[in-house]
Amino acid sequence: MNDPAPGRSDRPRLVLGVDTALRKTGYGIVTREGRSLTALRFGLIRIPANRPHSVCLQALHDGIGAVLEENRPDEVAIEGVFYCKNVRTALALGEARGVVIETCAAAGIPVYEHAPRRVKQAVVGYGNAHKSQVASMVARLLNLESIPSEDETDALGLAICHLQARGNPAGTELKPL
Amino acid sequence: MNDPAPGRSDRPRLVLGVDTALRKTGYGIVTREGRSLTALRFGLIRIPANRPHSVCLQALHDGIGAVLEENRPDEVAIEGVFYCKNVRTALALGEARGVVIETCAAAGIPVYEHAPRRVKQAVVGYGNAHKSQVASMVARLLNLESIPSEDETDALGLAICHLQARGNPAGTELKPL
Repeated sequence: MNDPAPGRSDRPRLVLGVDTALRKTGYGIVTREGRSLTALRFGLIRIPANRPHSVCLQALHDGIGAVLEENRPDEVAIEGVFYCKNVRTALALGEARGVVIETCAAAGIPVYEHAPRRVKQAVVGYGNAHKSQVASMVARLLNLESIPSEDETDALGLAICHLQARGNPAGTELKPL
Repeated sequence: MNDPAPGRSDRPRLVLGVDTALRKTGYGIVTREGRSLTALRFGLIRIPANRPHSVCLQALHDGIGAVLEENRPDEVAIEGVFYCKNVRTALALGEARGVVIETCAAAGIPVYEHAPRRVKQAVVGYGNAHKSQVASMVARLLNLESIPSEDETDALGLAICHLQARGNPAGTELKPL
């Protein structure tokens, strides 16, 4: 099951990073040609705070589904969760993650997890970097004129991390969820 | 947003109970006419243990989606989770729940949560009942010839609990997720 999705031969590999949450999910599509990274698109899927839970999950499904359909990324990178404040938060975050993973699976696009430490390592160079350092480095690596929101830079960072792991033959084995 | 789904006028209300899990999800559809409860259908959505995570979530989506399409229940009842062994379990359970909630939302069918204690109360008469008591009481209330599997009786119990809450005008307010 490893490495099921080599980039299509006629274009560089597109990776969609998703920073999953129930109320506000960041996403970003990054591609690499040679050493140059480009953000094709990034944004937020926002749901007004007073909408019921099921509406949030449906909006997340539809929002990610639209990005998959419009941009047809080759692979998706999400954050590996190894710590959560409490069971309630883990359950809510799990619900959002489940919807994202299933939406990608239904579209035939493999999803990979990357630990937050690895994302920081890939973007800034060390795993304990501050969020603000990650954000400005993401903007620099992608030649963006301004720094996107935190959820967007987290998503773009995930995509960059995944592309780096792909480009590193000595890197950790990549296994889709 | 309360009570958005009164039973269709031409048939009694159908309630789908779902006992959500990643590897083995029980479901059961119960209807009530007068005081008589009937199980229209129950079963398990099983996924072989060695399949990847994303495949399990997709199978859960497709399995619940098929039941919704074939039986068009009016409402869905799932278990309210208030305790989980650890964050890892909560996250995995959340993923499965998220997929079930989203699948129902996409089909326009409201989902309600019931606490495990309330299900036991509704089926057996007291909230600390053993699982085996719940199972045999579910079989008795539904006039089943044998006792279904634990995941199926949990699902049928959720549907019975929901129908009881619906039929009790003094009962707790029902609010969909």
